[in-house]
Amino acid sequence: MNISALLTSVGINTAVCLVLLSVYSILRKQPSNVSVYFGRRLASVCPRPSDPFRFVRFVPSPSWIVKAWETTEEEMLAVGGMDAVVFLRAVVFSIRIFSIAAVICFLLVLPVNYYGQEMRHKQIPSESLEVFTIENVKEGSKWLWAHCLALYIITCSACILLYFEYKSITKMRLEYFTRSPPNPSHFTVLVRAIPQSSQESYSDSIKKFFTTYHASSYLSHQMVLRCGRVQKLMTDAEKMYLILKAASVEQNCKPNLIQCGLCGGPTHSFNILSSETDSDKGKTGFSDLDLATIRKECPAAFVFFKTRYAAVVAAQVLQSSNPMLWVTDLAPEPHDVYWSNLCIPYRQLWIRKIGTLVAAIAFMLVFLIPVTFVQGLTQLEQLQATFPFLRGLLKKKYMSQLVTGYLPSVILILALYTVPPTMMLFSAVEGSISRSGRKKSACCKVLCFTIWNVFFVNIFTGSVISQLNVFSSVKDIPAQLAKAVPRQASFFVTYVLTSGWASLSCEVMQFFALFCNLVKRFILRTNDDSSNGIFSFPYHTEAPRLLLFGFLGFTCSILAPLILPVLLIYFSLAYLVYKNQILNVYVPKYESGGQYWPIVHITTIFSLVLSQIVALGVFGIKRSPVASGFTIPLIICTLLFNEYCRQRFLPVFKSSAAEVLIEMDRKDEQSGTMEEIHQQLHSAYCQFKLISQELCRSQCLNNQGEGDSSLDPEKLKSGKEPSQLNGSCTVLSNLDIAETSKK
Amino acid sequence: MNISALLTSVGINTAVCLVLLSVYSILRKQPSNVSVYFGRRLASVCPRPSDPFRFVRFVPSPSWIVKAWETTEEEMLAVGGMDAVVFLRAVVFSIRIFSIAAVICFLLVLPVNYYGQEMRHKQIPSESLEVFTIENVKEGSKWLWAHCLALYIITCSACILLYFEYKSITKMRLEYFTRSPPNPSHFTVLVRAIPQSSQESYSDSIKKFFTTYHASSYLSHQMVLRCGRVQKLMTDAEKMYLILKAASVEQNCKPNLIQCGLCGGPTHSFNILSSETDSDKGKTGFSDLDLATIRKECPAAFVFFKTRYAAVVAAQVLQSSNPMLWVTDLAPEPHDVYWSNLCIPYRQLWIRKIGTLVAAIAFMLVFLIPVTFVQGLTQLEQLQATFPFLRGLLKKKYMSQLVTGYLPSVILILALYTVPPTMMLFSAVEGSISRSGRKKSACCKVLCFTIWNVFFVNIFTGSVISQLNVFSSVKDIPAQLAKAVPRQASFFVTYVLTSGWASLSCEVMQFFALFCNLVKRFILRTNDDSSNGIFSFPYHTEAPRLLLFGFLGFTCSILAPLILPVLLIYFSLAYLVYKNQILNVYVPKYESGGQYWPIVHITTIFSLVLSQIVALGVFGIKRSPVASGFTIPLIICTLLFNEYCRQRFLPVFKSSAAEVLIEMDRKDEQSGTMEEIHQQLHSAYCQFKLISQELCRSQCLNNQGEGDSSLDPEKLKSGKEPSQLNGSCTVLSNLDIAETSKK
Repeated sequence: MNISALLTSVGINTAVCLVLLSVYSILRKQPSNVSVYFGRRLASVCPRPSDPFRFVRFVPSPSWIVKAWETTEEEMLAVGGMDAVVFLRAVVFSIRIFSIAAVICFLLVLPVNYYGQEMRHKQIPSESLEVFTIENVKEGSKWLWAHCLALYIITCSACILLYFEYKSITKMRLEYFTRSPPNPSHFTVLVRAIPQSSQESYSDSIKKFFTTYHASSYLSHQMVLRCGRVQKLMTDAEKMYLILKAASVEQNCKPNLIQCGLCGGPTHSFNILSSETDSDKGKTGFSDLDLATIRKECPAAFVFFKTRYAAVVAAQVLQSSNPMLWVTDLAPEPHDVYWSNLCIPYRQLWIRKIGTLVAAIAFMLVFLIPVTFVQGLTQLEQLQATFPFLRGLLKKKYMSQLVTGYLPSVILILALYTVPPTMMLFSAVEGSISRSGRKKSACCKVLCFTIWNVFFVNIFTGSVISQLNVFSSVKDIPAQLAKAVPRQASFFVTYVLTSGWASLSCEVMQFFALFCNLVKRFILRTNDDSSNGIFSFPYHTEAPRLLLFGFLGFTCSILAPLILPVLLIYFSLAYLVYKNQILNVYVPKYESGGQYWPIVHITTIFSLVLSQIVALGVFGIKRSPVASGFTIPLIICTLLFNEYCRQRFLPVFKSSAAEVLIEMDRKDEQSGTMEEIHQQLHSAYCQFKLISQELCRSQCLNNQGEGDSSLDPEKLKSGKEPSQLNGSCTVLSNLDIAETSKK
Repeated sequence: MNISALLTSVGINTAVCLVLLSVYSILRKQPSNVSVYFGRRLASVCPRPSDPFRFVRFVPSPSWIVKAWETTEEEMLAVGGMDAVVFLRAVVFSIRIFSIAAVICFLLVLPVNYYGQEMRHKQIPSESLEVFTIENVKEGSKWLWAHCLALYIITCSACILLYFEYKSITKMRLEYFTRSPPNPSHFTVLVRAIPQSSQESYSDSIKKFFTTYHASSYLSHQMVLRCGRVQKLMTDAEKMYLILKAASVEQNCKPNLIQCGLCGGPTHSFNILSSETDSDKGKTGFSDLDLATIRKECPAAFVFFKTRYAAVVAAQVLQSSNPMLWVTDLAPEPHDVYWSNLCIPYRQLWIRKIGTLVAAIAFMLVFLIPVTFVQGLTQLEQLQATFPFLRGLLKKKYMSQLVTGYLPSVILILALYTVPPTMMLFSAVEGSISRSGRKKSACCKVLCFTIWNVFFVNIFTGSVISQLNVFSSVKDIPAQLAKAVPRQASFFVTYVLTSGWASLSCEVMQFFALFCNLVKRFILRTNDDSSNGIFSFPYHTEAPRLLLFGFLGFTCSILAPLILPVLLIYFSLAYLVYKNQILNVYVPKYESGGQYWPIVHITTIFSLVLSQIVALGVFGIKRSPVASGFTIPLIICTLLFNEYCRQRFLPVFKSSAAEVLIEMDRKDEQSGTMEEIHQQLHSAYCQFKLISQELCRSQCLNNQGEGDSSLDPEKLKSGKEPSQLNGSCTVLSNLDIAETSKK
């Protein structure tokens, strides 16, 4: 591959991106697509029912870019929650570090590579890409110190940036924690593995235990009920109710909420059932079920405490002298609870964790075997031998070209699309108690999968066995990597170009949702905007992709610096696209409080160390003992830096400090809001949600301006509410079910 | 090596053991050796000053064996503390499992090995040892299922025994914890990394912090003072005092204790200085130093809480939003505190830990290089070339025999003697806050060192680099081990015979202490019994040795079953010898509460898994796919079993359960002893100990019977006191210093 080919590829990809983004800027202005491109706003603000036909609707405009660019971090925090801010910080971090790397590498490394060997240089456009990589530097060259220096500068800048990011995100997490409105999850502990007793019910024994040992801080508790039959009954009843209601009650815009009538079951403190909306019929209708559900209690419960500090203490201290009984954890946020996992017997969890870990590793390793096999089938001869009836069809030239040219890559792409759902499934089986925990766990799994299957498998092409053989001889790894990485560098450049840029265009276009919307409108002929699922941000697919490109950037930067400009364009575009998507499309249903940053941190450290190991191998091959000698302390220092950060910052992401909790408790007690919070706690966790799907429509008849300006920041902020403390089940709840059934 | 040679070796070693044990049984009856063989009793009971010359003193008698055999576990618990009981349990566990293994292997494996090949068998005494190992089984033999079955039976029995032992020791730990008298360490938290402030002293800021955030449970605190100059002054002053005192005060038998006059420093609550003995002179003499020490506060302190539960909560919950400040840990027992490590800045600890880990691994790997080099020097030619003046000396035949024959092994043994102190030094540098923690950490390090340098180095003979090469190709390890282990089996049999049996005889003889005693008596001509150091049990040398023999037993059992009877004799002897030593020689100065059991457990699991991997390799070499196939699930099950035990039992060894703590607190509150405990807390932790060395002598003139019977159980039990709660510094304290300076 030479420079002109690369430039052609850049040109084509840029054109594709520009076209897609322009199409997006037109499509988003169409009122029919509002459910595709403004899902987040739909959840909070009523859309304009129809739009006058105007010319401006069909002209591409960069208004969304301007808007995304202008949104400040505070606004993002209000709109997307802290996880979104942390994700964008990771993008900004990548832009910063790769800008520094680009400057260093273009000034220092690229000239050394280019003039590395005494050769007659062609004109730059027809120069091979390999002339710009470290492969062009001759053995024993004294100029390898330039690469070593660049490696030092990149590592040091990365560590400094990482340190300040970690520090600032830790501070942000603390502020977010202290400034956010009272959160029921801070007062609640999830107790699992309640011991079975023949004399008393789970609910009685939990009450007895906590009144004995935590009498001063125990407030009340709520049993987790067994899912399955009860839930099925409930959803059936809900359907019936909705049908009846739709016939009798008039539609109004206020979301029609039904208080959960089953919360708490037999506990006395849950007899107070607040009814804010007209849900009395629903409540009386279901109250007969209470008796049936008493016998279906799980050995798990939410226990509410009077203060945040008491809850944290109860969650962290070993409760029973048998560590497999009375297991306590801080509860997730109400919308974040993954109810169906709460009933898993605690004794199974460790074996489930091991099982899914093994399954995920096996999936990662053998993923390419069936794919390669199916791709092999697309060889014409094999296909014809397997399916003789295709013989006539395949004889036509364009068909054979299609089959051999596109089918393999289509198969690979389709297979890759199965990865995030599979990993999500593994994480669900693992037994996470929260949706955010499940997503985070899936994110780690997808990250490992991506790095393995994009980087290592491309480098060590061959069968699984031969791939693993590379790792069975530990000391050869640097040399093996050093041989393989520069050779594959031009592939990685094109990979970033095609896969990276295209993935952003796809993300912004939301092809799948658009397709569903089209089908619905033109085939099913419905005009219901709200029935498309509104999803939370897919961190488990986007974060691994971002980190993969960062990983490729670090490992290739000093070996093949031409990857850096391509990466910088990717990250800049990503910054705008993801900001736009968070602003408009995705709804933050739950909040992990920046738990993704430790993943970003550790991946960056891994990338740095691997790039240093590769550099070590390269310096070894190029016979530069000085450069090799200087690289080893760099590796050690990077690892020590990581260990320091782990000591200094990580505990804050694992648990909250007594200092902070006690201050918050005191503030609430002094302001007198504590009583109110305690009242709200009782109805915060609803296991079975009954929500009518009637969305606000009829009351929203006031005319609004253009698609973008119609949604002012005041209304945007109201979209944040669902993740905060409110006593009723909100409009988002039904989407949880939609998402679960999909993933 | 053939059977008759093995039997000869067994005979010689048995004879040596019998002679040494007989000599021991005579020596222990000599009143002059009472400080060597009855150190523990000396610390608690006054010895008889002189013994009438009787014939029975010079006749070997098995009385000590009978006594050791008859002592029950309850008595051991009272005498040696829980650690001693756990250690003996490990010995008993080894006896049990190797009895089972011996029965299985002699009935099932040995005949298969012996008749494994069609060959003409010689008479058994002249049969080679290899005929009894698995090497004699021919390739593809169908009888390998016997080995596989034996492996299954041994693994299952080991797991079952381990499970019940772990369960019973966990129960014992809980009982020990609840039944033991109130321990100040349960109420105390060690706070480190107190932030520096320009306005207030450490003591003020700690008071402020804990009265703000733990007002309801905070009792008081005691600053840790900087060691070094102050301590030096104190010891000088103490010496002066003792000289003056010895001249003026008459000797009495009651141990002469001086209350620590410096405890607490500036905290108001420590002004109450109880004076039980005539120490007023000492106290007034030192009180002027108080002012000087105020300025030497460390950023560390002991904080006392009102209840055990409050202390555990404060120790476990993250205190500050900066995890590197206000670091809390449960305090060790007063005698267990490793004072000089408390002043290490907390920020250094993580780097110290990494540093010592790296140093220990490096020491482990390169240990044999200097030893081999020095051993190489003992080649006569090299010695003569290096030191020409030796030429004349070395020409004499017996000298050359001595140098070449014995010097290498002497050098190796001397080098090996440096290992435990070195590891102890590493563990001290690491920053343990307690002596028991330091010893436990050293135990783990010595264990790794021993297994590596005895097992792996013997198997993969050669340089460090070639040893490491074996491990760089991961998948070859089973095959490499399978080739090497059976070949070295006869070496391991003789190793257990010589090193194992001899080490027990040496342990019981206490050669070093005996030598010191002889020097003192016949060269220095003093008759002071008490001045020998009284040591606590050297778990860091004895536990690794015991576990090494267990490790050898598991790995060799099905490959070379002849090791089992030798091992069984070793463990039976060990049971008697260690019981005797714990009863008579060593003093339990501090108590880790069975923390050694998890080490025993994990080492046994490691031994089992390694033996299974070796078996897998052997079955592979012998071409028995069925046996290999059956071994893999066994490895997985063993690992799962370990994981289960880790989940089920290990947390109890890490922290105490709320349930238990609260019950204990309630009991003390109801019985009204809480006030008394709070009073005693203030004087429990004395950083600078001032103890006269005058031991009870003159008052103990009542005549007593024979050496053994003179010490009745009532008096034995009083020897346990030092590790319990008492407000004063006890007679043992000065020995701590002796031990520290030695190790």
